[in-house]
Amino acid sequence: MSEAAVGYAREQGTRFVEELKDLLRIPSVSTAPEHVEDVRKAAEFVAEGLRAAGMEHVRLIETTSDAHKGHPLVYADWLHAEPAADGKAKPTVLLYGHYDVQPAEPLDEWKSPPFEPEVRDGNIYARGAVDDKGQMWMHVKALESVMKTEGKLPVNVRVIIEGEEEVGGEGIAAFVREHGDQLKADAALVSDTEMFAPELPTLCVGLRGMIYTELEARGAATDLHSGMYGGAAPNPFVALAQMIAKMKREDGRIAIPGFYDGIEEPTKAELEAWRKLPFDEEEYRKHEVGSTELTGETMFSVLERTWARPTMDVHGMPGGFTGAGAKTVIPARATAKISFRLVPGMKPEATFAKYKRFVEEICPKGIQVKVSMIHSGEPIVVSTDNRYVHAATQAMAEVFGKETVFIRGGGSIPIVGDFVRELGIPTVMMGFGLSDDNLHAPNEKFHLANFHRGIESIVMFLDRVGSDKPVSTGSRD
Amino acid sequence: MSEAAVGYAREQGTRFVEELKDLLRIPSVSTAPEHVEDVRKAAEFVAEGLRAAGMEHVRLIETTSDAHKGHPLVYADWLHAEPAADGKAKPTVLLYGHYDVQPAEPLDEWKSPPFEPEVRDGNIYARGAVDDKGQMWMHVKALESVMKTEGKLPVNVRVIIEGEEEVGGEGIAAFVREHGDQLKADAALVSDTEMFAPELPTLCVGLRGMIYTELEARGAATDLHSGMYGGAAPNPFVALAQMIAKMKREDGRIAIPGFYDGIEEPTKAELEAWRKLPFDEEEYRKHEVGSTELTGETMFSVLERTWARPTMDVHGMPGGFTGAGAKTVIPARATAKISFRLVPGMKPEATFAKYKRFVEEICPKGIQVKVSMIHSGEPIVVSTDNRYVHAATQAMAEVFGKETVFIRGGGSIPIVGDFVRELGIPTVMMGFGLSDDNLHAPNEKFHLANFHRGIESIVMFLDRVGSDKPVSTGSRD
Repeated sequence: MSEAAVGYAREQGTRFVEELKDLLRIPSVSTAPEHVEDVRKAAEFVAEGLRAAGMEHVRLIETTSDAHKGHPLVYADWLHAEPAADGKAKPTVLLYGHYDVQPAEPLDEWKSPPFEPEVRDGNIYARGAVDDKGQMWMHVKALESVMKTEGKLPVNVRVIIEGEEEVGGEGIAAFVREHGDQLKADAALVSDTEMFAPELPTLCVGLRGMIYTELEARGAATDLHSGMYGGAAPNPFVALAQMIAKMKREDGRIAIPGFYDGIEEPTKAELEAWRKLPFDEEEYRKHEVGSTELTGETMFSVLERTWARPTMDVHGMPGGFTGAGAKTVIPARATAKISFRLVPGMKPEATFAKYKRFVEEICPKGIQVKVSMIHSGEPIVVSTDNRYVHAATQAMAEVFGKETVFIRGGGSIPIVGDFVRELGIPTVMMGFGLSDDNLHAPNEKFHLANFHRGIESIVMFLDRVGSDKPVSTGSRD
Repeated sequence: MSEAAVGYAREQGTRFVEELKDLLRIPSVSTAPEHVEDVRKAAEFVAEGLRAAGMEHVRLIETTSDAHKGHPLVYADWLHAEPAADGKAKPTVLLYGHYDVQPAEPLDEWKSPPFEPEVRDGNIYARGAVDDKGQMWMHVKALESVMKTEGKLPVNVRVIIEGEEEVGGEGIAAFVREHGDQLKADAALVSDTEMFAPELPTLCVGLRGMIYTELEARGAATDLHSGMYGGAAPNPFVALAQMIAKMKREDGRIAIPGFYDGIEEPTKAELEAWRKLPFDEEEYRKHEVGSTELTGETMFSVLERTWARPTMDVHGMPGGFTGAGAKTVIPARATAKISFRLVPGMKPEATFAKYKRFVEEICPKGIQVKVSMIHSGEPIVVSTDNRYVHAATQAMAEVFGKETVFIRGGGSIPIVGDFVRELGIPTVMMGFGLSDDNLHAPNEKFHLANFHRGIESIVMFLDRVGSDKPVSTGSRD
């Protein structure tokens, strides 16, 4: 049954890309108040795509509440899968993606404008190309390919697409918590991760969690002239620098008391498998990071450091004078945007509490600190021992003609944790991004070959899951 | 002779303030490229004022060269003072001020718009009210008051007003260096400092110097996603924080090797006089700084710390994500705007070299640093033992009806150093600002009573300097 659908997807591939371009033209930057209408427009575009694919009950679900000014969810389902020969009902798969994107700044570093998609050398360049509009659109087009050729799906399918993934996903989290019954399923499929190497089919089976915070330091009551007051007035930037330096040691260790408590290490088998992955640290330093040296806890490998170790990063330090030239101001306040990545065994609330206690303790004299949580997500590990992971492993191996590898991701997809906690279902993370796709950076791209292979893999995955034959435990053992 | 001029100044006081308002309406922000025309407009306004006062050879002097895109100087003179009874020529006084202003940001903290001057409770509120348009305009109006009543001045006068004081004064520095003969004088008078207390006539006899720098840290080749690369990629903000924390210790000491070498301490007599000044540290902390504690080298008094000790301040840290909300970026680069205040015995170039060497030494791994000098100024101490300081001491004491005190300033007026070095003349710093005038901050103001007393003090000063009687050594001994 998947052959006809794959044939359709190949035949319609060019149109699929043109539709994706239309979607990428909508600047659905979820963090920017000025783009709130664009975000909605993108939601409507996705809903229309699901309707055209033949899905049912397509609708926008508003997420705005008293406590939250949110962007809509897009819901759809198709729940008419024929029972198996033995009369058993087919499982239900929940497809998840997001239609919102990161801000595109700094704009002057884009070779083509971020919201004017352009195809160059087999890649489509635009903000959201790979994260996650391109990968989300694969799901919509996979559903369309099967429905248009078969008139039905091999399994029951629900679709939930959110518009707040880049700002913490509060709306979908609340929906999953409060209306989990409307998303009842046996497993989720998410395409918002990347392949370990070009041409290497990859399933992601673990994600770091995070807390994203703002640390504000206040000193004088108003901005002061540094000539007149320098030497006596507290400087909030110096205070932030001193606190940051105390939190992150030069050897990459985080000095917050108890920060590493309770961390669950990866298993020996997992570490062994990581060591076998085609990874060249020097190549990674040179061509992915592009710095003179790599940093962090050098007693761990780079893959461990980015997948299985917690970290701290500073993203920006607003306040004071940031224009061209000079202004001799001691600002009354300054802020640091600081995030921590968490690994299994760590809890966002507990980590935030330790961090807050520590900065309050080390706060330099004359300074008052305020710590706020912007958003958070729990770390997650998915068991590889279930039929959905097996089906995905086989589907990708078949499409790519290569054995599928298991990796973890360093980033956060908080919804995967919510699916485990609230719906009690595992998530298959079948991603098609590449490490040079410039996620969250200028010149984001998606390799078009992976867009098409992604559609085929999803078609095959649905077919395998819906198959009456028991899914084998994979070819990796 | 000064009585008639003082009478005129009192009679015309309201008009003088209206003219000042017109000048304050011109947003002559010298650091902002978009205000380049406004800066010129302010220069022309000042030139017109000098012409109306009866000054001669009034003209704009362009400062733009191959190396420098500058704002014009305003020049004027009147060199016809009658010789003394004994046939000796009268001295020449060089009046200096600046017509450019600091940026007005943050705009939302102004009670009335920065370029719409408003009088409230006897103060005029606007950017530049006291620094330095208001004080510079006192000079113009003092000249007018004498010329309109006497038809002549008691001394020879040259006037030089610059438009780059807030951006380092490169143009006037070059002019003084290359065309010093056109500014030939016996002493300079500058009104760009403040009174130690309301109603307390004050002469400033020392200034700190400074170097204003940018410290840029570069890590990865492009912005990276902190989920994917956090733990292995260098973070430029963390690196800057670590370097800043290493440069400025928590006890306020600066840890750059050799930083304090060669510092000339104030004399015992000077320190003794400072101890007698009406200064309440707790009052200063509460009502001027408004912080929970004062900081810096607590083994020195606050006046020593702000007048006679070098310091380091961070003014802003541009780079990364500074908008509302969250962006999980590890920026490729980040910058810290860092300045150092220097005291007598320190040289800007030498301090910069020590600073540069130190940050290159402590630069964290994976990071490359670049240090740039934005501008600099030398520290200065003026001898109190000369006829011009004596004349100023008496003039102010007479206008205010109180003994004049000597203080130092913590800020920099680089031109005062240039006058010593290039023209070989002392500068009298007769300032009329108050400590709560919000210099360089929102809601800058000038106390109008001091505007009028300033005009009268300058009239009296010129009269005393031009007097045939020897000026006494003052009443302070």
